[in-house]
Amino acid sequence: MTKRKLGRGVAVVGAGMSKFGAFPEKTTRDLFVEAFKDMRASVDKGLDANDIEALYIGNYSSDLFERQGHTAPIMADWIGLTPRPATRVEDACASSGVALRQGLLAVASGAYDVVLVGGIEVMNKLPIAEVTEALATAGDMLYEIPAGFTFPGFYAAMATAYMHRYGATPEALMQVALKNHDNGALNEKAQFNSTIAAVMEGKRRSAEKKGRPIPTWANEMEFLHDDRANPMIAWPLRLFDCSPVTDGATAVLLVSEEIARQYTDDPITIIGSGQASDGALHDRPDLTSIGAAKKASQMAYEMAGVTANDIKVAEVHDCFTIAEIIATEDIGFFEPGKGHEAAEEGLTTRHGPKPINTSGGLKSKGHPVGASGAGQAVEIFKQMRGKAGERQVDRDVDLALTHNVGGTGQTAVVHIYERK
Amino acid sequence: MTKRKLGRGVAVVGAGMSKFGAFPEKTTRDLFVEAFKDMRASVDKGLDANDIEALYIGNYSSDLFERQGHTAPIMADWIGLTPRPATRVEDACASSGVALRQGLLAVASGAYDVVLVGGIEVMNKLPIAEVTEALATAGDMLYEIPAGFTFPGFYAAMATAYMHRYGATPEALMQVALKNHDNGALNEKAQFNSTIAAVMEGKRRSAEKKGRPIPTWANEMEFLHDDRANPMIAWPLRLFDCSPVTDGATAVLLVSEEIARQYTDDPITIIGSGQASDGALHDRPDLTSIGAAKKASQMAYEMAGVTANDIKVAEVHDCFTIAEIIATEDIGFFEPGKGHEAAEEGLTTRHGPKPINTSGGLKSKGHPVGASGAGQAVEIFKQMRGKAGERQVDRDVDLALTHNVGGTGQTAVVHIYERK
Repeated sequence: MTKRKLGRGVAVVGAGMSKFGAFPEKTTRDLFVEAFKDMRASVDKGLDANDIEALYIGNYSSDLFERQGHTAPIMADWIGLTPRPATRVEDACASSGVALRQGLLAVASGAYDVVLVGGIEVMNKLPIAEVTEALATAGDMLYEIPAGFTFPGFYAAMATAYMHRYGATPEALMQVALKNHDNGALNEKAQFNSTIAAVMEGKRRSAEKKGRPIPTWANEMEFLHDDRANPMIAWPLRLFDCSPVTDGATAVLLVSEEIARQYTDDPITIIGSGQASDGALHDRPDLTSIGAAKKASQMAYEMAGVTANDIKVAEVHDCFTIAEIIATEDIGFFEPGKGHEAAEEGLTTRHGPKPINTSGGLKSKGHPVGASGAGQAVEIFKQMRGKAGERQVDRDVDLALTHNVGGTGQTAVVHIYERK
Repeated sequence: MTKRKLGRGVAVVGAGMSKFGAFPEKTTRDLFVEAFKDMRASVDKGLDANDIEALYIGNYSSDLFERQGHTAPIMADWIGLTPRPATRVEDACASSGVALRQGLLAVASGAYDVVLVGGIEVMNKLPIAEVTEALATAGDMLYEIPAGFTFPGFYAAMATAYMHRYGATPEALMQVALKNHDNGALNEKAQFNSTIAAVMEGKRRSAEKKGRPIPTWANEMEFLHDDRANPMIAWPLRLFDCSPVTDGATAVLLVSEEIARQYTDDPITIIGSGQASDGALHDRPDLTSIGAAKKASQMAYEMAGVTANDIKVAEVHDCFTIAEIIATEDIGFFEPGKGHEAAEEGLTTRHGPKPINTSGGLKSKGHPVGASGAGQAVEIFKQMRGKAGERQVDRDVDLALTHNVGGTGQTAVVHIYERK
């Protein structure tokens, strides 16, 4: 865990994604082709696909979700990369964040100059109970799952531990949902690209159409406290505290720094990368932070030579609202126990001092688990280049960060990006 | 695919494996701990586990085989590596060969000095029909599996194409099985560590014990042609043409060349590495060779600056006997169409000019799919250091090669090793 310098610099010169959503008629192949095309369109000076020397694909479990293993060479085939090496990387919901790290190391090693990193997941082919079971395999199948845990339960345990220690309220969690829907409403690729106010309005209209009593919520908070509109999933987590079940794919193009300007005059350099592991949740002394995320952040900051204060924008792993609050502490944006206050004070909104999840996050943009990590880099690429449209933050983003967690934190991977 | 030099040299300084076999009571955790201990015992000057900076785990589908995803951090946890980064790499049966390549690139990148590469697979927990189905997910689930293909069928198609083009006979395939059982009989870690003559003797004794007619096979060839003793699986492949369903784990320790002598005075350097992908079998113009394996071999030879003639020993991917014959051509040991003659002439036996699969190969040692690639490196490590016991080849092994295939050749990865 000593400070390391890589053999050579690596830059992001393209990044794209498919539309995120529920597409039961589509396969990972369809979605990855869509993401690849979107990425390609983002390369300023164009990309000859023959330049790509290797593919790293993050995917949690195409095995369980669509009965297709060995997905990496299939993805290579469908975008015309055959016979280039194609490797799947898996670390649960951190799969494509870790794939990004492997792509980074592969370019730094000298083996390749140009590497494509992708993320894919198709989840809506299975009935929802089977989705929950498939995701649960990312917990510990010997010690946790037989005890009845599923992922909402794991994060509910973390939420109650956090609330108990720091006095946080369910309303702080709701602020995360409100913010991320506000951001996702401005992201046309988001699964839920609407504000919670718009969701309320939709429900009112639907009730009117069906001749049912029209709900009379006074505001979003009242809506979010309504047990019918926003049912309890695992206390204190309600429906709008949970990221959705999503199909989607993402793609990021990495090149060695020396050749970056062949592709763009505006490369984004990856100057920090950290990854760490941990035991399963049942075996941890503390549920109020994710140790692997703290360690991965430290590694990334040390490699980059910057601190949390320097970071202008971050995408963090908000698989549940509590996860975002904890994440903002683990990456050092706020002191332990202060993340919930920061959320309530609006410090992490687009216009706040520490914008978090301007894309809408996993919560609103969607969470195709194996694709989410590389998806974070897509948003950072846009924000740093000033191309995030209506959700563009109102400052110069010279340094940014992505934070991607697998399972309950058995894996965490953090990257730091610089625009010169 | 141009010739590449890595940023720095990487050496193997330890390699070990669990016993391979059918252990329905064991998990991947148990087997990986066993492999780790065996690897550790092989490090001449000892290993402080705290030196290990990252873990790469090759695994095909713990998801399907034991309903456990996100296996890499669990493996790290069970051998005490937490919080080190732990990453699963998947490319079907080439998973741990590709994990070895990722470990190699990671050390070459400068990110780590010491990396542990492992392979794990537990297959005997499922009923055999489900094992066949789980393995079939490594084919193409849209275009191949609905047509009725399973892996014996895929390789039977390759065998018939090869026999048709080159006039090979089923007896040539049988020679591969005979040889690999001869070798595996001398490997105490092998699942089937007995010669086919010993298998015959066992069956004779069993018949006698049960009061049944004692079989009167005149020799091994007669036994291998007996439809009851060696039933047809998918013509021309019989039972003894197929690798078994195996539980097992493997572990290989990689370090940067500069520090190798802290661990041993006898390091094995990886001087060549190649990986390539291909479309699924149904989409290939030629079934008599594996294009990805040819390309991966070329990449590895170019990087190493050596040729097939220089290689003294190789472990190749003999998931079926025909696969070994094709492999010996794809890595350039024999001309296309000559591999079957080489097998019949005994050129690939332990004492022949081109020893192949001295470990017993996947056929006799066993094939825990995600563990097999790193398992090949374990044998090479032993042979190069003259520590392969009774199966040690009778010459100096300065250069050796491993050839690991995923699926029907959608992935292939080749490594070349040097002992100075």
